[in-house]
Amino acid sequence: MEFYDVVSRRHMVRSFLDAPVSSESIERILNAARRGPSAGYSQGVEFVVITDPDVRSKLSPPPEVLATKGVRNFIEEAPVVVLVCVSAEIYKSRYREGDKARARDGADDDDLWFVPYWHTDAGAAMMLILLAAVDEGLSAGVAGVMRADGQARMQRALGMPDTHIAIALIAIGHAAADARNVRSSANTRKRRPLDEIVHRNRW
Amino acid sequence: MEFYDVVSRRHMVRSFLDAPVSSESIERILNAARRGPSAGYSQGVEFVVITDPDVRSKLSPPPEVLATKGVRNFIEEAPVVVLVCVSAEIYKSRYREGDKARARDGADDDDLWFVPYWHTDAGAAMMLILLAAVDEGLSAGVAGVMRADGQARMQRALGMPDTHIAIALIAIGHAAADARNVRSSANTRKRRPLDEIVHRNRW
Repeated sequence: MEFYDVVSRRHMVRSFLDAPVSSESIERILNAARRGPSAGYSQGVEFVVITDPDVRSKLSPPPEVLATKGVRNFIEEAPVVVLVCVSAEIYKSRYREGDKARARDGADDDDLWFVPYWHTDAGAAMMLILLAAVDEGLSAGVAGVMRADGQARMQRALGMPDTHIAIALIAIGHAAADARNVRSSANTRKRRPLDEIVHRNRW
Repeated sequence: MEFYDVVSRRHMVRSFLDAPVSSESIERILNAARRGPSAGYSQGVEFVVITDPDVRSKLSPPPEVLATKGVRNFIEEAPVVVLVCVSAEIYKSRYREGDKARARDGADDDDLWFVPYWHTDAGAAMMLILLAAVDEGLSAGVAGVMRADGQARMQRALGMPDTHIAIALIAIGHAAADARNVRSSANTRKRRPLDEIVHRNRW
Protein backbone atom coordinates (compact mmCIF):
# COMPACT_ATOMS: atom_id res chain seq x y z
CA MET A 1 0.00 0.00 0.00
CA GLU A 2 1.18 3.56 -0.68
CA PHE A 3 2.84 5.11 2.37
CA TYR A 4 0.43 8.04 2.76
CA ASP A 5 -2.57 5.71 2.38
CA VAL A 6 -1.21 3.61 5.25
CA VAL A 7 -0.71 6.73 7.40
CA SER A 8 -4.16 8.15 6.71
CA ARG A 9 -6.01 4.84 7.15
CA ARG A 10 -4.40 4.09 10.48
CA HIS A 11 -6.61 4.63 13.50
CA MET A 12 -6.99 2.86 16.82
CA VAL A 13 -9.13 -0.28 16.60
CA ARG A 14 -10.18 -1.93 19.83
CA SER A 15 -12.69 -4.53 18.66
CA PHE A 16 -11.63 -7.57 16.68
CA LEU A 17 -13.19 -10.45 14.75
CA ASP A 18 -12.44 -14.00 15.80
CA ALA A 19 -10.33 -14.50 12.67
CA PRO A 20 -6.70 -15.54 12.49
CA VAL A 21 -3.73 -13.49 11.29
CA SER A 22 -1.20 -15.27 9.07
CA SER A 23 2.23 -15.96 10.49
CA GLU A 24 3.69 -14.27 7.39
CA SER A 25 1.93 -11.03 8.32
CA ILE A 26 3.21 -11.29 11.89
CA GLU A 27 6.79 -11.78 10.74
CA ARG A 28 6.61 -8.86 8.30
CA ILE A 29 5.23 -6.62 11.05
CA LEU A 30 8.04 -7.65 13.43
CA ASN A 31 10.62 -7.08 10.71
CA ALA A 32 9.28 -3.57 10.17
CA ALA A 33 9.30 -2.98 13.94
CA ARG A 34 13.01 -3.65 14.23
CA ARG A 35 13.87 -1.11 11.52
CA GLY A 36 13.28 1.91 13.73
CA PRO A 37 16.12 4.23 14.73
CA SER A 38 17.83 3.99 18.10
CA ALA A 39 20.10 6.43 19.89
CA GLY A 40 23.70 5.31 19.38
CA TYR A 41 22.22 2.31 17.53
CA SER A 42 21.67 0.91 21.02
CA GLN A 43 18.78 -1.26 19.82
CA GLY A 44 17.34 -1.62 23.30
CA VAL A 45 13.79 -2.21 22.09
CA GLU A 46 12.51 -5.80 22.30
CA PHE A 47 9.19 -7.44 21.59
CA VAL A 48 7.07 -10.24 22.98
CA VAL A 49 4.63 -11.57 20.40
CA ILE A 50 1.72 -13.38 22.02
CA THR A 51 -0.61 -15.67 20.11
CA ASP A 52 -1.37 -18.17 22.88
CA PRO A 53 -4.90 -17.36 24.15
CA ASP A 54 -4.03 -18.49 27.68
CA VAL A 55 -1.21 -15.98 27.84
CA ARG A 56 -3.28 -13.21 26.23
CA SER A 57 -5.88 -13.64 28.96
CA LYS A 58 -3.26 -12.77 31.59
CA LEU A 59 -2.17 -9.49 30.03
CA SER A 60 -5.16 -7.37 31.04
CA PRO A 61 -6.49 -6.56 34.49
CA PRO A 62 -8.96 -9.18 35.85
CA PRO A 63 -12.43 -9.28 34.17
CA GLU A 64 -14.20 -7.90 37.25
CA VAL A 65 -11.90 -4.86 37.23
CA LEU A 66 -12.43 -4.29 33.52
CA ALA A 67 -16.21 -4.63 34.02
CA THR A 68 -16.31 -1.87 36.63
CA LYS A 69 -14.38 0.35 34.22
CA GLY A 70 -16.64 -0.45 31.26
CA VAL A 71 -13.61 -1.48 29.22
CA ARG A 72 -13.72 -4.20 26.60
CA ASN A 73 -10.86 -6.69 26.74
CA PHE A 74 -9.63 -6.20 23.19
CA ILE A 75 -6.22 -7.52 24.21
CA GLU A 76 -7.72 -10.94 24.92
CA GLU A 77 -9.95 -10.70 21.85
CA ALA A 78 -7.23 -9.99 19.28
CA PRO A 79 -5.49 -13.03 17.74
CA VAL A 80 -2.07 -11.40 18.04
CA VAL A 81 -0.65 -9.06 20.67
CA VAL A 82 2.81 -7.52 20.55
CA LEU A 83 4.30 -6.11 23.74
CA VAL A 84 6.90 -3.41 23.09
CA CYS A 85 9.55 -3.36 25.86
CA VAL A 86 12.77 -1.45 26.26
CA SER A 87 15.89 -1.62 28.40
CA ALA A 88 17.19 1.71 29.71
CA GLU A 89 20.39 -0.04 30.79
CA ILE A 90 21.25 -1.00 27.20
CA TYR A 91 21.24 2.71 26.32
CA LYS A 92 23.20 3.80 29.37
CA SER A 93 25.76 1.08 28.79
CA ARG A 94 26.10 1.99 25.09
CA TYR A 95 26.84 5.62 25.97
CA ARG A 96 29.61 4.55 28.32
CA GLU A 97 31.53 3.16 25.32
CA GLY A 98 34.55 5.13 24.11
CA ASP A 99 33.10 6.45 20.88
CA LYS A 100 30.27 8.09 22.81
CA ALA A 101 32.54 10.19 25.03
CA ARG A 102 31.81 13.22 22.83
CA ALA A 103 28.05 12.84 23.27
CA ARG A 104 28.44 12.42 27.02
CA ASP A 105 30.99 15.24 27.29
CA GLY A 106 31.42 14.80 31.02
CA ALA A 107 27.69 14.74 31.79
CA ASP A 108 26.41 12.33 34.42
CA ASP A 109 23.56 9.97 33.53
CA ASP A 110 20.83 12.29 34.85
CA ASP A 111 22.06 15.14 32.68
CA LEU A 112 22.88 13.02 29.62
CA TRP A 113 19.46 11.36 29.69
CA PHE A 114 17.36 14.44 30.41
CA VAL A 115 15.30 12.98 27.54
CA PRO A 116 15.08 9.20 28.16
CA TYR A 117 15.70 8.14 24.59
CA TRP A 118 14.71 4.54 25.20
CA HIS A 119 11.13 5.79 25.43
CA THR A 120 11.49 7.80 22.22
CA ASP A 121 12.79 4.75 20.37
CA ALA A 122 10.07 2.50 21.82
CA GLY A 123 7.53 4.96 20.44
CA ALA A 124 9.15 4.78 17.02
CA ALA A 125 8.91 0.96 17.09
CA MET A 126 5.26 1.20 18.19
CA MET A 127 4.53 3.48 15.22
CA LEU A 128 6.13 1.02 12.79
CA ILE A 129 3.98 -1.82 14.14
CA LEU A 130 0.78 0.22 13.87
CA LEU A 131 1.57 1.20 10.28
CA ALA A 132 2.76 -2.25 9.21
CA ALA A 133 -0.49 -3.76 10.50
CA VAL A 134 -2.49 -1.45 8.23
CA ASP A 135 -0.25 -2.32 5.29
CA GLU A 136 -1.06 -5.99 5.96
CA GLY A 137 -4.78 -5.21 5.69
CA LEU A 138 -5.16 -5.54 9.44
CA SER A 139 -6.03 -3.18 12.27
CA ALA A 140 -4.31 -2.46 15.53
CA GLY A 141 -5.02 -0.83 18.86
CA VAL A 142 -2.76 0.16 21.72
CA ALA A 143 -3.23 -0.46 25.42
CA GLY A 144 -0.49 1.66 26.94
CA VAL A 145 1.28 0.07 29.89
CA MET A 146 1.71 3.28 31.85
CA ARG A 147 1.21 2.49 35.50
CA ALA A 148 3.68 0.68 37.72
CA ASP A 149 1.19 -2.15 38.34
CA GLY A 150 1.20 -2.86 34.60
CA GLN A 151 4.91 -3.62 34.81
CA ALA A 152 4.30 -6.20 37.52
CA ARG A 153 1.53 -7.79 35.45
CA MET A 154 3.85 -8.15 32.41
CA GLN A 155 6.53 -9.69 34.62
CA ARG A 156 4.04 -12.23 36.00
CA ALA A 157 2.29 -13.03 32.72
CA LEU A 158 5.32 -13.16 30.43
CA GLY A 159 8.37 -13.58 32.61
CA MET A 160 9.56 -10.14 31.51
CA PRO A 161 12.72 -9.40 33.50
CA ASP A 162 12.88 -6.23 35.59
CA THR A 163 15.76 -5.04 33.39
CA HIS A 164 13.07 -4.10 30.84
CA ILE A 165 10.20 -1.64 30.87
CA ALA A 166 6.90 -2.64 29.27
CA ILE A 167 5.63 0.22 27.10
CA ALA A 168 2.61 -0.85 25.08
CA LEU A 169 0.47 -3.85 24.30
CA ILE A 170 -0.50 -3.67 20.64
CA ALA A 171 -3.49 -5.79 19.64
CA ILE A 172 -3.49 -6.81 15.98
CA GLY A 173 -6.26 -8.46 14.01
CA HIS A 174 -9.23 -7.94 11.73
CA ALA A 175 -11.45 -5.06 12.84
CA ALA A 176 -14.96 -6.01 13.97
CA ALA A 177 -17.93 -4.19 12.40
CA ASP A 178 -18.56 -2.31 15.65
CA ALA A 179 -14.95 -1.10 15.96
CA ARG A 180 -15.88 2.49 15.19
CA ASN A 181 -18.34 2.49 18.10
CA VAL A 182 -15.87 1.47 20.77
CA ARG A 183 -15.20 4.26 23.20
CA SER A 184 -12.06 6.16 22.27
CA SER A 185 -10.73 9.57 23.19
CA ALA A 186 -10.44 10.30 19.47
CA ASN A 187 -14.26 10.06 19.17
CA THR A 188 -14.90 12.94 21.55
CA ARG A 189 -11.82 15.12 21.15
CA LYS A 190 -10.91 17.08 18.05
CA ARG A 191 -7.61 16.79 16.26
CA ARG A 192 -5.57 19.91 16.95
CA PRO A 193 -5.22 21.99 13.76
CA LEU A 194 -1.84 22.02 12.05
CA ASP A 195 -1.37 25.76 12.71
CA GLU A 196 -1.63 25.16 16.42
CA ILE A 197 1.00 22.42 16.62
CA VAL A 198 3.44 23.67 13.97
CA HIS A 199 5.60 26.69 14.65
CA ARG A 200 7.54 28.33 11.80
CA ASN A 201 11.20 29.23 12.37
CA ARG A 202 10.49 30.11 15.97
CA TRP A 203 7.91 29.25 18.59
CA MET B 1 6.09 4.58 -2.55
CA GLU B 2 5.09 1.18 -1.12
CA PHE B 3 5.12 1.15 2.68
CA TYR B 4 7.72 -1.61 3.09
CA ASP B 5 10.00 0.08 0.52
CA VAL B 6 9.86 3.26 2.58
CA VAL B 7 10.69 1.32 5.76
CA SER B 8 13.58 -0.59 4.24
CA ARG B 9 15.10 2.42 2.45
CA ARG B 10 15.09 4.60 5.54
CA HIS B 11 18.46 5.10 7.19
CA MET B 12 20.10 8.00 8.97
CA VAL B 13 21.59 10.56 6.59
CA ARG B 14 23.81 13.24 8.06
CA SER B 15 25.28 14.91 4.97
CA PHE B 16 23.13 16.98 2.64
CA LEU B 17 23.37 18.69 -0.74
CA ASP B 18 22.84 22.41 -0.99
CA ALA B 19 19.51 21.84 -2.75
CA PRO B 20 16.09 23.07 -1.70
CA VAL B 21 13.11 21.02 -0.52
CA SER B 22 9.70 22.01 -1.87
CA SER B 23 7.21 23.54 0.52
CA GLU B 24 4.69 20.91 -0.63
CA SER B 25 7.00 18.16 0.60
CA ILE B 26 7.44 19.93 3.94
CA GLU B 27 3.69 20.28 4.43
CA ARG B 28 3.04 16.62 3.55
CA ILE B 29 5.71 15.54 6.02
CA LEU B 30 4.18 17.69 8.77
CA ASN B 31 0.73 16.36 7.98
CA ALA B 32 2.03 12.80 8.34
CA ALA B 33 3.75 13.76 11.61
CA ARG B 34 0.52 14.86 13.23
CA ARG B 35 -1.20 11.55 12.46
CA GLY B 36 0.60 9.64 15.17
CA PRO B 37 -1.25 8.19 18.15
CA SER B 38 -1.30 9.92 21.53
CA ALA B 39 -2.28 8.63 24.95
CA GLY B 40 -5.81 9.81 25.71
CA TYR B 41 -5.61 11.65 22.38
CA SER B 42 -3.71 14.26 24.36
CA GLN B 43 -1.88 15.47 21.25
CA GLY B 44 0.90 17.05 23.25
CA VAL B 45 3.48 16.76 20.46
CA GLU B 46 4.35 20.00 18.63
CA PHE B 47 6.84 20.88 15.93
CA VAL B 48 9.07 23.78 14.98
CA VAL B 49 9.95 23.72 11.28
CA ILE B 50 13.08 25.73 10.57
CA THR B 51 14.06 26.82 7.08
CA ASP B 52 15.73 30.14 7.97
CA PRO B 53 19.53 29.55 7.74
CA ASP B 54 20.21 32.07 10.50
CA VAL B 55 18.02 30.13 12.90
CA ARG B 56 19.41 26.76 11.77
CA SER B 57 22.90 27.98 12.63
CA LYS B 58 21.85 28.49 16.25
CA LEU B 59 20.50 24.98 16.80
CA SER B 60 23.82 23.15 17.11
CA PRO B 61 26.62 23.65 19.59
CA PRO B 62 29.16 26.36 18.54
CA PRO B 63 31.48 25.43 15.60
CA GLU B 64 34.57 25.24 17.83
CA VAL B 65 32.82 22.70 20.06
CA LEU B 66 31.71 20.62 17.08
CA ALA B 67 35.25 20.77 15.65
CA THR B 68 36.77 19.29 18.80
CA LYS B 69 34.21 16.49 18.62
CA GLY B 70 34.83 15.81 14.93
CA VAL B 71 31.11 16.22 14.24
CA ARG B 72 29.76 17.63 11.01
CA ASN B 73 27.03 20.26 11.40
CA PHE B 74 24.41 18.51 9.30
CA ILE B 75 21.70 20.46 11.10
CA GLU B 76 22.99 23.73 9.65
CA GLU B 77 23.64 22.05 6.29
CA ALA B 78 20.14 20.66 5.72
CA PRO B 79 17.62 23.00 4.08
CA VAL B 80 14.87 21.96 6.49
CA VAL B 81 14.99 21.02 10.15
CA VAL B 82 12.03 19.91 12.21
CA LEU B 83 12.27 20.03 15.98
CA VAL B 84 9.93 17.57 17.71
CA CYS B 85 8.81 18.88 21.12
CA VAL B 86 6.31 17.63 23.65
CA SER B 87 4.49 18.94 26.69
CA ALA B 88 4.24 16.55 29.64
CA GLU B 89 1.70 18.90 31.24
CA ILE B 90 -0.76 18.43 28.36
CA TYR B 91 -0.77 14.68 29.12
CA LYS B 92 -1.04 15.10 32.87
CA SER B 93 -3.85 17.59 32.48
CA ARG B 94 -5.72 15.34 30.02
CA TYR B 95 -5.63 12.44 32.49
CA ARG B 96 -7.15 14.62 35.20
CA GLU B 97 -10.33 14.88 33.10
CA GLY B 98 -13.38 12.91 34.26
CA ASP B 99 -13.40 10.26 31.53
CA LYS B 100 -9.85 9.25 32.48
CA ALA B 101 -10.68 8.46 36.12
CA ARG B 102 -10.72 4.75 35.24
CA ALA B 103 -7.20 4.92 33.76
CA ARG B 104 -5.92 6.83 36.76
CA ASP B 105 -7.78 4.60 39.25
CA GLY B 106 -6.54 6.54 42.25
CA ALA B 107 -2.89 6.53 41.19
CA ASP B 108 -0.81 9.65 41.76
CA ASP B 109 1.11 11.16 38.82
CA ASP B 110 4.34 9.30 39.60
CA ASP B 111 2.55 5.95 39.56
CA LEU B 112 0.25 6.75 36.62
CA TRP B 113 3.17 7.96 34.47
CA PHE B 114 5.64 5.22 35.33
CA VAL B 115 6.06 5.22 31.54
CA PRO B 116 6.17 8.88 30.45
CA TYR B 117 3.91 8.50 27.44
CA TRP B 118 4.71 11.94 26.05
CA HIS B 119 8.13 10.52 25.13
CA THR B 120 6.56 7.45 23.52
CA ASP B 121 4.29 9.63 21.40
CA ALA B 122 7.12 11.99 20.47
CA GLY B 123 9.02 8.95 19.19
CA ALA B 124 6.03 7.92 17.10
CA ALA B 125 5.90 11.40 15.54
CA MET B 126 9.64 11.27 14.88
CA MET B 127 9.19 7.93 13.09
CA LEU B 128 6.45 9.35 10.87
CA ILE B 129 8.69 12.28 9.86
CA LEU B 130 11.61 9.98 9.03
CA LEU B 131 9.39 7.75 6.90
CA ALA B 132 7.53 10.59 5.19
CA ALA B 133 10.84 12.17 4.17
CA VAL B 134 11.83 8.94 2.38
CA ASP B 135 8.45 8.78 0.68
CA GLU B 136 9.11 12.33 -0.60
CA GLY B 137 12.36 11.13 -2.17
CA LEU B 138 14.35 12.91 0.54
CA SER B 139 16.61 11.78 3.35
CA ALA B 140 16.61 12.59 7.03
CA GLY B 141 18.91 12.37 10.03
CA VAL B 142 18.26 12.81 13.72
CA ALA B 143 20.26 14.82 16.22
CA GLY B 144 18.72 13.75 19.50
CA VAL B 145 18.30 16.54 22.04
CA MET B 146 19.13 14.44 25.08
CA ARG B 147 21.12 16.56 27.46
CA ALA B 148 19.74 19.34 29.62
CA ASP B 149 21.94 21.92 27.88
CA GLY B 150 20.21 21.09 24.59
CA GLN B 151 16.92 22.24 26.13
CA ALA B 152 18.42 25.61 27.01
CA ARG B 153 19.79 25.96 23.46
CA MET B 154 16.34 25.31 21.93
CA GLN B 155 14.80 27.86 24.29
CA ARG B 156 17.36 30.47 23.27
CA ALA B 157 17.38 29.71 19.54
CA LEU B 158 13.66 29.22 19.01
CA GLY B 159 11.88 30.78 21.96
CA MET B 160 10.66 27.30 22.95
CA PRO B 161 8.81 27.74 26.27
CA ASP B 162 9.92 25.70 29.27
CA THR B 163 6.49 24.02 29.27
CA HIS B 164 7.83 21.89 26.41
CA ILE B 165 10.65 19.37 26.13
CA ALA B 166 12.77 19.32 22.97
CA ILE B 167 13.22 15.74 21.79
CA ALA B 168 14.89 15.60 18.41
CA LEU B 169 16.15 17.82 15.63
CA ILE B 170 15.39 16.10 12.34
CA ALA B 171 17.39 17.35 9.36
CA ILE B 172 15.67 16.82 6.01
CA GLY B 173 17.08 17.27 2.55
CA HIS B 174 18.75 15.58 -0.40
CA ALA B 175 21.52 13.19 0.64
CA ALA B 176 25.03 14.16 -0.41
CA ALA B 177 27.16 11.59 -2.25
CA ASP B 178 29.35 11.08 0.82
CA ALA B 179 26.41 10.48 3.16
CA ARG B 180 27.25 6.79 3.57
CA ASN B 181 30.74 7.70 4.79
CA VAL B 182 29.63 9.95 7.63
CA ARG B 183 30.41 8.42 10.98
CA SER B 184 27.37 6.64 12.40
CA SER B 185 26.92 4.03 15.09
CA ALA B 186 25.09 1.90 12.52
CA ASN B 187 28.32 1.62 10.50
CA THR B 188 30.23 -0.10 13.26
CA ARG B 189 27.54 -1.95 15.18
CA LYS B 190 25.54 -4.89 13.88
CA ARG B 191 21.77 -5.00 13.79
CA ARG B 192 20.58 -7.38 16.49
CA PRO B 193 19.05 -10.52 14.92
CA LEU B 194 15.27 -10.89 15.08
CA ASP B 195 15.53 -14.00 17.29
CA GLU B 196 17.35 -11.99 19.93
CA ILE B 197 14.84 -9.15 20.16
CA VAL B 198 11.60 -11.08 19.62
CA HIS B 199 10.28 -13.37 22.34
CA ARG B 200 7.44 -15.81 21.57
CA ASN B 201 4.53 -16.04 24.03
CA ARG B 202 6.85 -15.49 26.92
CA TRP B 203 10.23 -13.92 27.52
